[in-house]
Amino acid sequence: MSAVLLFGIHCHQPVGNFDFVFEKAYEKAYEPFIRAVMDAVDFRFSVHITGALLEWIKENRAEFFDALGRLVSDNRVELQVSGFYEPILAAIPSRDRIEQIEMAKEFVKKEFGAQPRGLWLTERIWDTKILKDLVACGIEYVILDDYHLVCSGLEKEEIKGYYITEDEGKTLFLFPISEELRYLIPFRDVPEVVSFLEKREGFYTIYDDGEKFGIWPGTYSWVYKRGWLKRFLKAVDEGAVKCALFSEVLENTPPTSRVYPPIASYFEMGEWSLPAELAARFHAFVEELKASSRFYELLPFVRGGIWHNFLVKYPEANRMHKRMVWISRKFEEKKVSGSERRFLFKAQCNDAYWHGVFGGLYLPHLRRAVYSNLSRAEDAVLDSHAFFHEDVDCDGKREFLVRKPSYTLWICPHWGGQIKEFTVKDWHYNLVDVLTRRLEHYHIIAHQKERQKAEVASIHEIPRDLKELPEVDSCDRGAFIERLFFEDKRLCLGDEEFVVEDFSSSFVRLRCEKEGFEVKKSYIFEDERVSVLYTVSSSRPFMFETEININPGTPDASIIAGEKRFKASIFKEVRSLKGVIMHSPFFKGELLIKLDKPLRFFAVPIFTLSQSEKGFDEIFQETALIFKWEDSASFLELKIDVEVVHA
Amino acid sequence: MSAVLLFGIHCHQPVGNFDFVFEKAYEKAYEPFIRAVMDAVDFRFSVHITGALLEWIKENRAEFFDALGRLVSDNRVELQVSGFYEPILAAIPSRDRIEQIEMAKEFVKKEFGAQPRGLWLTERIWDTKILKDLVACGIEYVILDDYHLVCSGLEKEEIKGYYITEDEGKTLFLFPISEELRYLIPFRDVPEVVSFLEKREGFYTIYDDGEKFGIWPGTYSWVYKRGWLKRFLKAVDEGAVKCALFSEVLENTPPTSRVYPPIASYFEMGEWSLPAELAARFHAFVEELKASSRFYELLPFVRGGIWHNFLVKYPEANRMHKRMVWISRKFEEKKVSGSERRFLFKAQCNDAYWHGVFGGLYLPHLRRAVYSNLSRAEDAVLDSHAFFHEDVDCDGKREFLVRKPSYTLWICPHWGGQIKEFTVKDWHYNLVDVLTRRLEHYHIIAHQKERQKAEVASIHEIPRDLKELPEVDSCDRGAFIERLFFEDKRLCLGDEEFVVEDFSSSFVRLRCEKEGFEVKKSYIFEDERVSVLYTVSSSRPFMFETEININPGTPDASIIAGEKRFKASIFKEVRSLKGVIMHSPFFKGELLIKLDKPLRFFAVPIFTLSQSEKGFDEIFQETALIFKWEDSASFLELKIDVEVVHA
Repeated sequence: MSAVLLFGIHCHQPVGNFDFVFEKAYEKAYEPFIRAVMDAVDFRFSVHITGALLEWIKENRAEFFDALGRLVSDNRVELQVSGFYEPILAAIPSRDRIEQIEMAKEFVKKEFGAQPRGLWLTERIWDTKILKDLVACGIEYVILDDYHLVCSGLEKEEIKGYYITEDEGKTLFLFPISEELRYLIPFRDVPEVVSFLEKREGFYTIYDDGEKFGIWPGTYSWVYKRGWLKRFLKAVDEGAVKCALFSEVLENTPPTSRVYPPIASYFEMGEWSLPAELAARFHAFVEELKASSRFYELLPFVRGGIWHNFLVKYPEANRMHKRMVWISRKFEEKKVSGSERRFLFKAQCNDAYWHGVFGGLYLPHLRRAVYSNLSRAEDAVLDSHAFFHEDVDCDGKREFLVRKPSYTLWICPHWGGQIKEFTVKDWHYNLVDVLTRRLEHYHIIAHQKERQKAEVASIHEIPRDLKELPEVDSCDRGAFIERLFFEDKRLCLGDEEFVVEDFSSSFVRLRCEKEGFEVKKSYIFEDERVSVLYTVSSSRPFMFETEININPGTPDASIIAGEKRFKASIFKEVRSLKGVIMHSPFFKGELLIKLDKPLRFFAVPIFTLSQSEKGFDEIFQETALIFKWEDSASFLELKIDVEVVHA
Repeated sequence: MSAVLLFGIHCHQPVGNFDFVFEKAYEKAYEPFIRAVMDAVDFRFSVHITGALLEWIKENRAEFFDALGRLVSDNRVELQVSGFYEPILAAIPSRDRIEQIEMAKEFVKKEFGAQPRGLWLTERIWDTKILKDLVACGIEYVILDDYHLVCSGLEKEEIKGYYITEDEGKTLFLFPISEELRYLIPFRDVPEVVSFLEKREGFYTIYDDGEKFGIWPGTYSWVYKRGWLKRFLKAVDEGAVKCALFSEVLENTPPTSRVYPPIASYFEMGEWSLPAELAARFHAFVEELKASSRFYELLPFVRGGIWHNFLVKYPEANRMHKRMVWISRKFEEKKVSGSERRFLFKAQCNDAYWHGVFGGLYLPHLRRAVYSNLSRAEDAVLDSHAFFHEDVDCDGKREFLVRKPSYTLWICPHWGGQIKEFTVKDWHYNLVDVLTRRLEHYHIIAHQKERQKAEVASIHEIPRDLKELPEVDSCDRGAFIERLFFEDKRLCLGDEEFVVEDFSSSFVRLRCEKEGFEVKKSYIFEDERVSVLYTVSSSRPFMFETEININPGTPDASIIAGEKRFKASIFKEVRSLKGVIMHSPFFKGELLIKLDKPLRFFAVPIFTLSQSEKGFDEIFQETALIFKWEDSASFLELKIDVEVVHA
């Protein structure tokens, strides 16, 4: 007796990733893997490649498609699909879900002549609500985790083969990825894999990131130079590891049983998606269970958060998500279907919307790709002049979405009356694509994390260390955050509710009254300019500042303040200033901020500290441009113009 | 400071419940409650009444509607709806979900002139997949549990007011029921309720079964005779308890925050829906957490099963469910919409499909109502002759569904080739509506359950005791289970896979080969009769028996075996017999089982032991009619006719 292995690699690069990363992943992982297995005729396996990567390979390394095509036509490789640009299927509208899967099927059919029957479940995020759409797309089976089945009332040891699930009488087969195999392949040596299979019978699935075979830390050396893959293929050649394809199993073996998984992903996602404090508590609880050897006994009852909680945890993720959903609905309402929907689909690529062991949301270039594609998509479906007073971010309160020929603004009265999006249309660039610094659970955990040794440390075992907790922000960042300084205290209006006084398509008048003072903030929209008018009055003297967070896209962007020119990523203070100019390679032109009176100016660069597969990353996110009025009187009128100058 | 109470009662009686239960619940709970509160003008609250009960009241106690109508028009009562016949919304097809909610809205509008904005979430089973349908029905808010929010990353103590959730940009408000209030009202005395509210501000929801106010054990005396309700209303009158309606809160207060609940119900459901062994382990784990005072600290990470797991735990529930879904699809395919769909909706009433602290699935009269309504619904949509070879029960394998003028058969090759449904059309009665005895987690737990004392024991605190574990069955019960007896062993084919040899609309030929023997079983369908032909051959001598489980609907049904007549609920053995006749008040006629040779006969009544709100119930479920051939040769041919004789 020996179990049969269902082996698959999932190769993914996010929309917007750097070209050099595509290249490196290709040279270090995808290409050497495929080259190594070409002649190992008994090694039969599955491959899933996501849309942005497929497009990159097609354009840059077409020979890879020939090799893969040969493996497919030799019936050695079975191809799976997902939504073309790798969206979280449960997080995009049903119509987009169907269209992205169909797009992936068409691509695979055209390039490889294959008719995929199976679906790689992006980030293994299962939600029964997607089942009907998958079945409508002709998907017969889905690959997810054994943890999904543990959450469905099965004991981990009994899980094998594949399962059937159902919604409204429509059925779908589920292949669970063995967690043990996920930690064995390729991190432990081949005899451990052989031994795992020898002790079992039936079918076991391992389907994991192709990047684990070459670009995860240490894996290139381990898999290729130190011969892991060669030894593995030898074991296959000698029959110690027997391989099959998913479709063959479907034809020849009935499902093990029926299951109804709850919303779930792999176990680790449960920790990441919880609010920081809870995540740290969860982490400690899991460590405790492991230490007392009760982890697997109690695993069926231990659950973290679900993916959608990232949209609560990170308002930035929610904003991108809700704008994406909103634009998708505009496409539906206006019955626009053409090729511009491709921009929307690109914007649905999952990586920028969340944050686990990879940078994700913390990576400015991934968020930039989302906003850039959203801008292109929106321009395809909306007129250049448009004005909406709607609950775009779905929190039960209405915001303003203002489209002028040169920009799109999203003004949120209930978030301190801030501008939360300022997209320059020509640049397809959101100036306020900024990130708030917050405490993450791994900041808390990093102090106590035990170091583990391993032949090659699995990515989950890389030691992390943090001497002190990073600084966090007291309010949600955006543009036009007001602060008042009284003799005895300081008040920040960044998260306050502003009352809407009046509005039209050319202005929005907001007001915040509190503890004896009143801030009136009016936005005035011109075709190429936004003006902000402040009238601040108080019963006692105050100083005032307004903070405009701008993400120039790179720490090398520059700020011109009077006669000084400095990088956006360094702190600067200027005693008295009537405006600044910002330059960035991402601006096709420049950004002008002009004041009607000279104020003290601070440029405060904001860096975040986030975890990645390599350890901790310090990332430049934005510059807080702060203008401070220090007269300390009881009344202030101030006008600020923000102007986009095209190159 | 003192929090405002959002108070609601949900009054439900399942479709098919005994008339005397409706009457008792009305006399002891609904009526005295409404009578008592009529003049307490400051007590403003919510009411939800489910369809079968609404219909019963309308027909039998119309004066109740007058009283309720007055409270509604005085703006003292806000009405909520659910699916009309109280289905689990996440467990029925989308089109039925919408239609049942619309049906409830229409009823409430017609009878009370009310336009409900809120939905009572049946069994509080939340699944995001229903959100879009609710919004399409104009539902603005839903009432569920605070546990849903704990599962969404909120700390229990911070939960108050109401929340907003979203799917595909459609938003819905969620009012969480306070677990603490659920255990306080009406079980603890009024000062504890007042003290709960005094310590808090904002809004807190209690919405619970109307039956807790009069028919749950001990509550009639406590609530009315011993004056709990009078004291409570006095506290309202004196302003110690302030009340508001859900709609008012929506108008005047914004949601507390945004949440994305996973699939969830109240915490207890998590235990009930797990497989027995896991449920007992879960129970012990929860007890352990409570004993070490870590329950609330870890509650966000502690999760049992989801409701749909009942469909895995109880094949009987799955069969009803999948037949219901299948018939619903036939309505859709055939575009039949008329009033017959009401039978389908009645069959969707949730109670019979699961089992928690109430009898549910264990109650034959509730299952009977499901099958009766399914039979009526199916007759409305399918021809009297029909034959299907489809995967009706959604396990990935096909069964046979055979409709003849007098009966409907469901033959399942992969369940020992058994008949799993034998509905006599004229009687709208499924003879094989039987239940398999299985170990339940509460059997295991009952030995160790600690007794708790309380002013009035809450239903969760009623002591249960069990001297010894009840008998369980080794295979799934149905009609025509074969057993072979060899000198050294006994083989049951009840759960074996039978191969389909051949079939047409008038016969199905099955075969099971195993360990040197072969059982051929053919079903032959005539208009009023089913014949079963056995050909059994083996390389060594054997004895043989076939077991036909029939549920006659009552322990008082009788069996006529030769000259003997006895109750279906007592054990009987007859040495040699060529057939039996079964009588039951639920049969409009009689059931004849005839053999072509005399065999030894056993009538084995089957009782289950299940928990209910009152303790343990022993319930007569069915009679196993066993015919045993004891010649001990190596070949047998046997023919059995099952005939329905109409009165």
